[in-house]
Amino acid sequence: MSFIATPQFMHFDEPLPLQSGGSIADYDLAFETYGQLNADKSNAIVVCHALNASHHVAGSYEGQSKSEGWWDNMIGPGKPVDTDKFFVIGINNLGSCFGSTGPMHTNSATGKPYGADFPVVTVEDWVDAQARLLDRLGIGKLAAVLGGSLGGMQALSWSLRYPERMRHAVVVASAPNLNAENIAFNEVARRAIVTDPDFNGGHFYEHGVVPARGLRIARMIGHITYLSDDVMNQKFGRSLRAPALLAEGADLTRGGPAPDRRDYLYSTQDVEFQIESYLRYQGEKFSGYFDANTYLLITRALDYFDPARSHDGDLTRALAVAKARFLLVSFTTDWRFAPARSREIVKSLLENNRDVSYAEIDAPHGHDAFLLDDPRYMGVMRSYFEGIAKELNTAERAGEAA
Amino acid sequence: MSFIATPQFMHFDEPLPLQSGGSIADYDLAFETYGQLNADKSNAIVVCHALNASHHVAGSYEGQSKSEGWWDNMIGPGKPVDTDKFFVIGINNLGSCFGSTGPMHTNSATGKPYGADFPVVTVEDWVDAQARLLDRLGIGKLAAVLGGSLGGMQALSWSLRYPERMRHAVVVASAPNLNAENIAFNEVARRAIVTDPDFNGGHFYEHGVVPARGLRIARMIGHITYLSDDVMNQKFGRSLRAPALLAEGADLTRGGPAPDRRDYLYSTQDVEFQIESYLRYQGEKFSGYFDANTYLLITRALDYFDPARSHDGDLTRALAVAKARFLLVSFTTDWRFAPARSREIVKSLLENNRDVSYAEIDAPHGHDAFLLDDPRYMGVMRSYFEGIAKELNTAERAGEAA
Repeated sequence: MSFIATPQFMHFDEPLPLQSGGSIADYDLAFETYGQLNADKSNAIVVCHALNASHHVAGSYEGQSKSEGWWDNMIGPGKPVDTDKFFVIGINNLGSCFGSTGPMHTNSATGKPYGADFPVVTVEDWVDAQARLLDRLGIGKLAAVLGGSLGGMQALSWSLRYPERMRHAVVVASAPNLNAENIAFNEVARRAIVTDPDFNGGHFYEHGVVPARGLRIARMIGHITYLSDDVMNQKFGRSLRAPALLAEGADLTRGGPAPDRRDYLYSTQDVEFQIESYLRYQGEKFSGYFDANTYLLITRALDYFDPARSHDGDLTRALAVAKARFLLVSFTTDWRFAPARSREIVKSLLENNRDVSYAEIDAPHGHDAFLLDDPRYMGVMRSYFEGIAKELNTAERAGEAA
Repeated sequence: MSFIATPQFMHFDEPLPLQSGGSIADYDLAFETYGQLNADKSNAIVVCHALNASHHVAGSYEGQSKSEGWWDNMIGPGKPVDTDKFFVIGINNLGSCFGSTGPMHTNSATGKPYGADFPVVTVEDWVDAQARLLDRLGIGKLAAVLGGSLGGMQALSWSLRYPERMRHAVVVASAPNLNAENIAFNEVARRAIVTDPDFNGGHFYEHGVVPARGLRIARMIGHITYLSDDVMNQKFGRSLRAPALLAEGADLTRGGPAPDRRDYLYSTQDVEFQIESYLRYQGEKFSGYFDANTYLLITRALDYFDPARSHDGDLTRALAVAKARFLLVSFTTDWRFAPARSREIVKSLLENNRDVSYAEIDAPHGHDAFLLDDPRYMGVMRSYFEGIAKELNTAERAGEAA
């Protein structure tokens, strides 16, 4: 059990202008903080979350077992991002289904749930909303913005929209934009959701149903892209589902005696292989808690992110405004956001003479590696954040001396 | 326009025993032949088809434009597999939806369409059915069995089940079994179909509906895995859908004037990117002609294929019975059936001291490359089949001399 985390909520009355040209009239943001803000408010770190995560980055909820935050291995007292030194802020993105205003909440203009009418939000919009929350907390300049995957895109976007408000950007397992294959997987997932008859054009809340079929498919596709081919072969290979599990769902009546699961069932619909069982389980679990409209919004935010776009595709020009120092981390077996994508960012930053560290971690776990405990990865992160902490101390001493 | 092809049908009364332990009481096979069977019936080649293909391998149907067979670039007069020299036979697999007996046909035992009750068929079952058709045609020994992808698995299976009945096995872009990731993609596609409310437990024919939503998703997933990352980026990249196409489907009413498609629409459901448009189109087309139960059956046949399985996973022992000479071809950017999978087969054949040629073609197109006109690939195939033709001539002359 790690330390106790407590979610907080902040209401915003002033409309947030969006990249789409629209705006959100008023909204709430859910967030959590860990550690203590120091006297000169220089030790704050914003952690940005990816697709299905939230503001609950670290710690556990009181009295709830297995409620650790999604990056609890990385962030906490004595951990690589050490909350004995840093004041860490996790913020739930707008449009999410974990506390910040999202499609399932009431649109004050209509008195009904937003549903599919929730405005399309982008990485840039999220970053703007995060910056406003920091204004309220009285935090001018961040020690760092940190994120993995879609969270890494937010960290990168922070460095472009608020270059004066951060010292470091830590961008893990990310990319400067989605490629065609990434968009393709998102699109299949979205079509599965949108064409589920229970989606009801995105207004399923009023019908008391959930497009669970679509969400299951979306999540199954997602899981395939999070894992490397190798780790899938290691974890599941061609193993058949174990007999004990088998008894729950499969049709054992066909062909006489129960198979010993060294034999195929010869069925197109029953679970044969462990990988099938795993994916079905993940899909089922996800469809029970994740909002379908949020899935559409977040995958679209991924699709749209492309800072080079407003510079005729020139990433180097796009990154010229960044002033932060950068750490980029990628994982060799990540085929969703391959190391080559991180290297594009590194190259463009170097062409702008920015201060960049880059670690390409030889890890077998695919994209999921950024959430796991690879010792080299943890070592790189610890070392980098220790460096940031030392700068703070130096700055504090300089402040005291002044 | 290539030569005229004419489908033929053959009825089989004797039950076909299946790997599952079941059997099919009686059935029809659709097939086509090209070229002339020579006097000693030594120049016959069976071409095995993959997932969504059929017995219509080459040539065109009379009066039907754009009706070329799926491997028309490879097979025909003067082509790499030269029908001036060979008698080529394409056979539609059992359970397919293109002419051979399948789930949409009447089960003679019930008088109703088989639907989901069509027996689960395997690669081995297909090979057995093909061998029976050859018996009827009076063909004892084939010059070659040839196939790509799932067709390559059938060619490999032929060499194990009927080692005396073939001189050559040509296995293109294939694998000795599916890995966990391959099975995972199949499973997601199957779940999309099975959970489509219009699937009706596989008995949708009686309801006058088709699980088109599920088929669309299945096909979209398939297409992603057929293409390489690189070719997707080249063909589609992040390009937005062109304005002309856009007008057909997208909501242009939002935000005032029609966008010039250098701007995002900011929509979660409209088509933004060309890759989305491509996938939706492919899904739509497929759902209009392919049978959902056939999709389940064929992906399961892929999952089940694993000749090493009955030899404790030892592929070398499994392939010991093969007597054919082999050509294996793989494509560098094929991530569905990567070159490493072909090399496993090559290695096991060499360990059995079999005669094996192997070509690893540096082609950008991913798995789809096996259907395309890469000159090196075509050259390898032409050369190999010219070699087989020369053997025939030698054998014929030897026959004349005797």
